[in-house]
This record gives sequence, C-alpha cells and structure tokens, in this order.
Amino acid sequence: MQAEPQAFDRVLSSMCTEPHPVARDAAERFLATNPGDPGTYPTVTALEDEAIAMLGEIAGLDDPTGYVASGGTEANLQAVRIARERADTTTPNVVMPESAHFSFQKAADVLGVDLRIVPTDADHRVDLEAVRTCVDAETALVVGVAGTTEYGRVDPIPELGRVAREVDAMLHVDAAWGGFVLPFTDHEWNFSHAPVDTMAIDPHKMGQAAVPAGGLLVRSADLLDELAVDTPYLESTAQATLTGTRSGAGVASAVAAMAELWPTGYRTQYVRSQNNAEWLADALEKRGYEVVEPTLPLVAADVPRSTFDALRDRGWRISRTGTGELRIVCMPHVSREMLASFVADLDRLEVRASVPVVCDD
Amino acid sequence: MQAEPQAFDRVLSSMCTEPHPVARDAAERFLATNPGDPGTYPTVTALEDEAIAMLGEIAGLDDPTGYVASGGTEANLQAVRIARERADTTTPNVVMPESAHFSFQKAADVLGVDLRIVPTDADHRVDLEAVRTCVDAETALVVGVAGTTEYGRVDPIPELGRVAREVDAMLHVDAAWGGFVLPFTDHEWNFSHAPVDTMAIDPHKMGQAAVPAGGLLVRSADLLDELAVDTPYLESTAQATLTGTRSGAGVASAVAAMAELWPTGYRTQYVRSQNNAEWLADALEKRGYEVVEPTLPLVAADVPRSTFDALRDRGWRISRTGTGELRIVCMPHVSREMLASFVADLDRLEVRASVPVVCDD
Repeated sequence: MQAEPQAFDRVLSSMCTEPHPVARDAAERFLATNPGDPGTYPTVTALEDEAIAMLGEIAGLDDPTGYVASGGTEANLQAVRIARERADTTTPNVVMPESAHFSFQKAADVLGVDLRIVPTDADHRVDLEAVRTCVDAETALVVGVAGTTEYGRVDPIPELGRVAREVDAMLHVDAAWGGFVLPFTDHEWNFSHAPVDTMAIDPHKMGQAAVPAGGLLVRSADLLDELAVDTPYLESTAQATLTGTRSGAGVASAVAAMAELWPTGYRTQYVRSQNNAEWLADALEKRGYEVVEPTLPLVAADVPRSTFDALRDRGWRISRTGTGELRIVCMPHVSREMLASFVADLDRLEVRASVPVVCDD
Repeated sequence: MQAEPQAFDRVLSSMCTEPHPVARDAAERFLATNPGDPGTYPTVTALEDEAIAMLGEIAGLDDPTGYVASGGTEANLQAVRIARERADTTTPNVVMPESAHFSFQKAADVLGVDLRIVPTDADHRVDLEAVRTCVDAETALVVGVAGTTEYGRVDPIPELGRVAREVDAMLHVDAAWGGFVLPFTDHEWNFSHAPVDTMAIDPHKMGQAAVPAGGLLVRSADLLDELAVDTPYLESTAQATLTGTRSGAGVASAVAAMAELWPTGYRTQYVRSQNNAEWLADALEKRGYEVVEPTLPLVAADVPRSTFDALRDRGWRISRTGTGELRIVCMPHVSREMLASFVADLDRLEVRASVPVVCDD
C-alpha cells in the first residue's frame, strides 16, 4: 500500500493527536487482542481494569466502574442510554446546552429520546436559568460539558447537578476532551465536585493514547448493569459495551500513556498547550481579530471565510465553529513554531489582501 | 508497561486472528489518523473508499456504499437502525433466527425495536416456515446469517429475501465472520444472489485485518442517509457512522489485507481452514464425540463440561455454544499442529478419566 498518512505539522483542527511513544508501542504490541472477549484475551482485560482505575483517579471517583469505549460518542450515547433505562417515563427527555457535541444528537436519534437544547450565555457556558426552565418530571438526564468542542468552555457542573437532583434526573459530564487538562485548573468538573453520575473522558484525545480509546465512567456499578446483554459463546456472562469486538491497542495504549504521564507529564503538557493557546489568542487579537479567550487550550477567532479558505489552501488543517469562527485546538503535537508559522501565513495573506490591484492597461 | 498479550498458539475460541503482516504494517503506519474527520485526515478517508470498493467486490455489490465500522455489532445495529427509520410503523419488529449473534439483542435494546426470534432446523439453519409465520405488516427487517457464530451455518438467503419482500421488509445479511470465506463456496449469500439491502462483513475476522475493522455495506446510498447526522466543526457535512472518532489503523489495515489477499490469498486460507476443520471434526468423531459437521471452518462437538474445563486449565482458549458444546473456530492462526496438539491433550485427559482410581489403603 503506497498511501501515507498526513503529517501532523499542519494539523490545527483535530482533538486527536500523535500518540505518546509509550502509547504507540503498547498499541502495536496489543494490536491482536480483543478486550471484548475476556475469556480469550485475559491480559488486555486486566489492563482495562487498570485503565478504569487510573481514569477514576483523574476524575475524582473512588472505586470507579466503566470501560474503555470506542470514543466520546459511544460514552455519551451510553450515558443517555443508562438515563433512559433509569427514567420513570416512556417519553424521557435529555436537557443539554447548545454547546454540547453533535454525538448527543446521534444518541437521541438512535435511542429515541427527546433532546431539549438550551442556549449558552455570552461566555459560551450553559444558561442555568434556561436549564431550570427546561427540565421537568420527564427529564432523564442533564448534560454538562467540561471543555466544549467549539470554545473549550466548562459548564457550571455543581449547579447543573443541583438542578438535575431537583427533578430526579441524572447528571452526565462530557469531559471527553477536557478530562486530561482540567485536573490542573481550578474548575469544578468531576465526580468529587458534584453529583455526577456518568462521564465521558477520552484517553485518545488530550490523554495521548492511540485511537480508539474513549472512556466511560459511572459512579456505581449498577449503572453499568443497565447496558448489559447476555453473551453466549464467550466465556464471560455479560457485555455492557456498545461494540462487541474491541481494540486491545486502544486499551493498552491508554494504560501506557496514563502510567507514563499522570500526573506530571499531563500537567507539563497542559501548561505548554495553554501557553500556546494564550500566545495565539494574543497574536490574533493584535491583528485586529475578535478572539474568544481560551479558558482551556482552544482558540476561536473571527477570521473572514476567504482568509480561512486561503489558509486551508496553503495546507493548514483548520476548522470552524458552528457560527463560522476559525477554531484551533492546541493539542500536544501543536508547537509554538507551528503556530508562529501559521500566523506568518496569515500575515502574508492579509498583506496581499490589502494591496490594491494594479491594472496594466 | 510490563504486561504481554497472549500468544495465539492456544487460541481456538476467537473469531479474530493475528493480522496479516501487511495489515499490521498498515495499521501501525496509520495509527494516528481518524477517518471520522475527513477534512483533517484525507488520506485515510480515501483509503476507506478503497475498502468499500473491495468489500463490494467480495460481496457481489456494484457501486457499493458503506463504511468501515468498529465491528460486526455496529454494522448489525446500524442495519436495524436503517430498517427502523424506513419502517412505516412506530412499532417495528425484526425477525431473526435464534442462531443470530447477540449483537441483535443489543441493537434491539438500544433502538427500541421488537425482536422476534424464530427457531432453527435440525441443521441449525433458520426454519423458513417459522419465518413466514412470524413476519407481518410491522416487520421492518428480516435477518439472515451467512456463517453463524455457533455452527458456521448459512441461512437460505434468497428465500429469506422473498419472504421479506412479501411483507415489504428489508433483508440484512450478517456475514461478519463468513464474508471472507463464502466467496469460495457454492453458498448463495450475497447482494448478487438475493435482494439483500444491508450486510455486515468484517475485515478484522477472516479478512485478517487489525481490529477495529468491521464493514457495513448497503445496496444504495440513500440507505446510509438514514443514519446521517449533521457535523458542525468538522470540515465535512454529515456523519453516518455510529462512532465519531474512528481508527485509521483499522481502515488502512483492511485495505492492505484485501489488496494483498483478495482473491487468491483468501481462497488459499479458506481451503486450509476448511481442511483443518474437517480434520478436527473427523478426529473428534473417531473418539466418539457427537460432532456438528463443519459447513464452514468452525467445529462444534459434544464434549463433557469436565473435559472442557480441564482443557481450559491446560491453557486452551476454547468456548462453548449456547447449549454447551465445545466450539472451535479454525481461524488463519489455527494450524494443523495446534489442532493435533489439542487432540493429544484431549486424549491424555480421556485416558486419565478412564483409569480407575486405586486406593492405597
């Protein structure tokens, strides 16, 4: 096969990154294993227990239960599914901010639950008053995001927990991207800060594991039981995962990355990424763009569409928010040099754009 | 990380196998890519198109549409989801044989459809009369299995297609395991043999790709549209997959394996596996066990539970059917030497079991 994967030297749009070398090594060694079949592949099954123990430590959860999922979408979907099963109604609804990831739309479609989307405030965090107005006796789940996809914002999780409890709903936190940087901030986001029932927290994003390594954590084991189906012809009795066969590479690389980097390596990476984000935000502001300040290592700025397209034409992998702003995620592979090169390209384009066209005739 | 994956030299229970060397190489090279984000990772996205084209060729489908899924469970679930969306009823049912994989139970739970399970005949194939009796105006989907998990049986797919059409239901074929051996048999199982609408066909099983590389094929692109959700902040417009971030390793390894092995390498492997299965069936029959003849490379035999447990204690990774028979899958990593060693262990155990206990006192 001749095709080569893209290099990461111009990737500014992804919430995935190059796996840490120890994670890559573990993924390669465990490529031919399947944690979905514990009777056949016991070593990787034991590694999954280690992964969940470490994720629990990161997310402030004693005696954690959960599993390594295919990614944040599966973890979010399974959280909605648990809430649906627990709800005392046949017409459950899920209340979430408009900033929540589109995987909740997918989950609602698949699971047949009603999605109630509430607006965010001027700082892109969920409007709490709108949540209070929106919940009712049929609300099965309130969703808070700890590190939104578009602006890296953290919703007020403890307050969402209080609202959820008032209507006897569950609380899910989507920390798929934020979970590996938030421990080094002052945000209240995890199981120890609020009555969080379920959480998505992905080693294959800021955790520097190889894809596929998402994480679903639940506060108590009985929540996972809501997902279990019987498993004939496997020498195990039940399976709570959405998929069947699963990647041992993902599980092993998650354990390797967390064992290597938690907490010191992740802290160092957070500081580096956050500094990069602030540097970029500052550089864009100085050039007159309207910038959404980076709470976490993610920068959004109001760059014209024509400039955006020209940057993509120059090979930059960049993406846009729903309202069209340039969006740059300062993942571990994003260096200060990359960002400086990006800003230099931006400057070149802007200079060209401001040069009047001279006609020869 | 000190843990080591299991060796495959005693694995007789798995429907996965060691990836082919070219598949492993491709998986390692594309480990840090995400076909779920085509705007950022265009090379692996192009490879996915190649994967679907080759899967279509294998499954007799011109102009194929589909995607590389996390595995057979996702492909089966998505097929049920398509049928649910297409059904003219709010209470759709799915008719399937009892031999169908437990992933359909999972799909029914998740999707809220009614599962109608019909018995199999004396040869473990679906009882067609029972299917005819079971379908009705609310049947959204009829499922046929082309290579059952327990006995490797192939349901009468053309006949199931006729029954499905009579009630205006869709037809799904689960060829997750069988799809890479059936092209070398006389079975009628694919899109060219019957009005099949959707199919699960997994490169990461008999296709010798690395996990996760399942396959969902659909007869026409509009079927896939039933699954699509909008995708803000990706430079693409819609996503039909159940997961979001996906493994580029799976996609690249599927392409590499199929490019290398289709059709000659797969044919050679099928012949070798089938011969192994027949050799094992014969060996077990000679020893007085009741054996389910291997239609495809999978052997089931009525071995006592105590013997089964003793074989597991000796390190053999073996599993059982729902009714308790020993079940052995002759995957590519299963050699004649492995099987001979397994039978020799069985003989040792049986000799021991038949030696009367001599008491010293």
